[in-house]
Amino acid sequence: MKKRVVLALGGNALQKNGEATAEAQKKIALEVGEAIADLANKYEIVIAHGNGPQVGNILIHEESASTTQAPAMPLETAVAMSQGQIGYWLTQAINNAFAKKGKTAKVATVISQVVVDPRDPAFKNPTKPIGQFYSEKEAKTLARKNKWTVKEDAGRGWRRVVASPKPIDIVEKRTILELVKNGVIVIAAGGGGIPVIRTKILKRLKGIDAVIDKDYAAEKLAEEVKADIFVSVTAVPNVYINYKLPSEQAITTISPSEIARLKKYGYFKAGSMLPKVEAAAKFAKNGRAGIITDIDHLKEALKGKAGTIIK
Amino acid sequence: MKKRVVLALGGNALQKNGEATAEAQKKIALEVGEAIADLANKYEIVIAHGNGPQVGNILIHEESASTTQAPAMPLETAVAMSQGQIGYWLTQAINNAFAKKGKTAKVATVISQVVVDPRDPAFKNPTKPIGQFYSEKEAKTLARKNKWTVKEDAGRGWRRVVASPKPIDIVEKRTILELVKNGVIVIAAGGGGIPVIRTKILKRLKGIDAVIDKDYAAEKLAEEVKADIFVSVTAVPNVYINYKLPSEQAITTISPSEIARLKKYGYFKAGSMLPKVEAAAKFAKNGRAGIITDIDHLKEALKGKAGTIIK
Repeated sequence: MKKRVVLALGGNALQKNGEATAEAQKKIALEVGEAIADLANKYEIVIAHGNGPQVGNILIHEESASTTQAPAMPLETAVAMSQGQIGYWLTQAINNAFAKKGKTAKVATVISQVVVDPRDPAFKNPTKPIGQFYSEKEAKTLARKNKWTVKEDAGRGWRRVVASPKPIDIVEKRTILELVKNGVIVIAAGGGGIPVIRTKILKRLKGIDAVIDKDYAAEKLAEEVKADIFVSVTAVPNVYINYKLPSEQAITTISPSEIARLKKYGYFKAGSMLPKVEAAAKFAKNGRAGIITDIDHLKEALKGKAGTIIK
Repeated sequence: MKKRVVLALGGNALQKNGEATAEAQKKIALEVGEAIADLANKYEIVIAHGNGPQVGNILIHEESASTTQAPAMPLETAVAMSQGQIGYWLTQAINNAFAKKGKTAKVATVISQVVVDPRDPAFKNPTKPIGQFYSEKEAKTLARKNKWTVKEDAGRGWRRVVASPKPIDIVEKRTILELVKNGVIVIAAGGGGIPVIRTKILKRLKGIDAVIDKDYAAEKLAEEVKADIFVSVTAVPNVYINYKLPSEQAITTISPSEIARLKKYGYFKAGSMLPKVEAAAKFAKNGRAGIITDIDHLKEALKGKAGTIIK
């Protein structure tokens, strides 16, 4: 029986060459597609991708060219748009990587809503900068008009900041699970999912402007689809202690409790390795493995022979 | 056993109140959601929606705010973005319409690529205007730079025109069929699908800038999912002869060959009723029914008691 794997793929990865055109990102998607096609005979695969630079560009376009006739879409809808965009690129890349092997891929992108708690403390302290830069005056006018929180961003100007709440449920989880059981490679929870709240009694869904970390959303997805392995696919082959210092040391295998100890001593950076190790360590319970590695070491890491394996 | 229905839903419908904000379109999506929730205990449902005004606005934003750092997405990717956008709104509307009945919806939006023939005659004569208006000079510069065809649009300025080729295959057809067999309401082939060509020998897919008519794509989808009924859901309850003239006559039931005769005499307008009656008449073979009606008469039309039924 095939093992079931959930991959959390960085949205930055598709722009690793510094180019944001569709053509450039599709070219890199093809590398991902080939890695996936290489794994598909041994693993059932679900892919949850990030969308940082892509949704950023969508918002810049939407907001800077907004008119009454063609009004800007809000962040939550922009996340849905980025799921269509990146999902399409990855789907086609996987189709083509299979074709290269003379095979037909079964692959589908499912637009995914991820439920967050409106009482999540993150909403009291929005930290995630998104969209374009503004002057202080513009930013404060927009903040009043649109009920945004705006902040000065490291001397580069003013930006909107939104909350990054934790995912608590995935609306489309049953459909995603059925697809993966039927042998479909599923692309889901893109960009951490479209953030929605669900009213308690009436169970109504409502989109909310926020950004869910894609590693936490992917880990939640891994639990929902009963995955055997969770992998956060990033730009480096391993997690490191003292990264880029003379004392740098790659972590190969480590336990969740050791991760917790390192975390306490401040070894992992928020917005960088922290969400990845937290997600992988959270998944690494009941004998399951959480892995952090790059796309080149993915195949070996799944065999236990590369990457940082939390177990 | 439930009958299987494919609905082709107009993209204009979501902006019928003349408002293009996400909020306004979501409100109308909810009306659609309630109609779907009302049918779901008797029918298996697949929804293929249009995207005319939505993809138009995405392109206007992408192109008018394009920079080197945040380059405009091409039309084919913009279609994928509109599938995410509208698919999300419809999915959430269906979720909420079910919740209103105290039920849980099984509904999913699948990002869909639709194959067209690169030798389709439509590519020799692009007719579909898309995106923003330009001056003659700007238009001709862009045409040279991007290999666009541009045309003067009814005195309102110059616009890019693209081909509207016929759909010949739906890449995700098997996945969509499996989902609908499993009782999932599927939203697919949005905006007529992301137009792709498939190379003959190597079977590689490649996105191509074109617009596939959503009624033709929906009809193709109806054949692929072995639907019993195809409905083009539009703004009026029936197809009419001499619409809005004193001699106006609503068509109730009609045969495909009678449709062909009316067509020959120029009774249906291209870009308006023509693709709807052509798609419905094409589907209405081997005892199957093709219906044209509006959302308010959908339920009665499916029972054979309203709308224009081609059989």
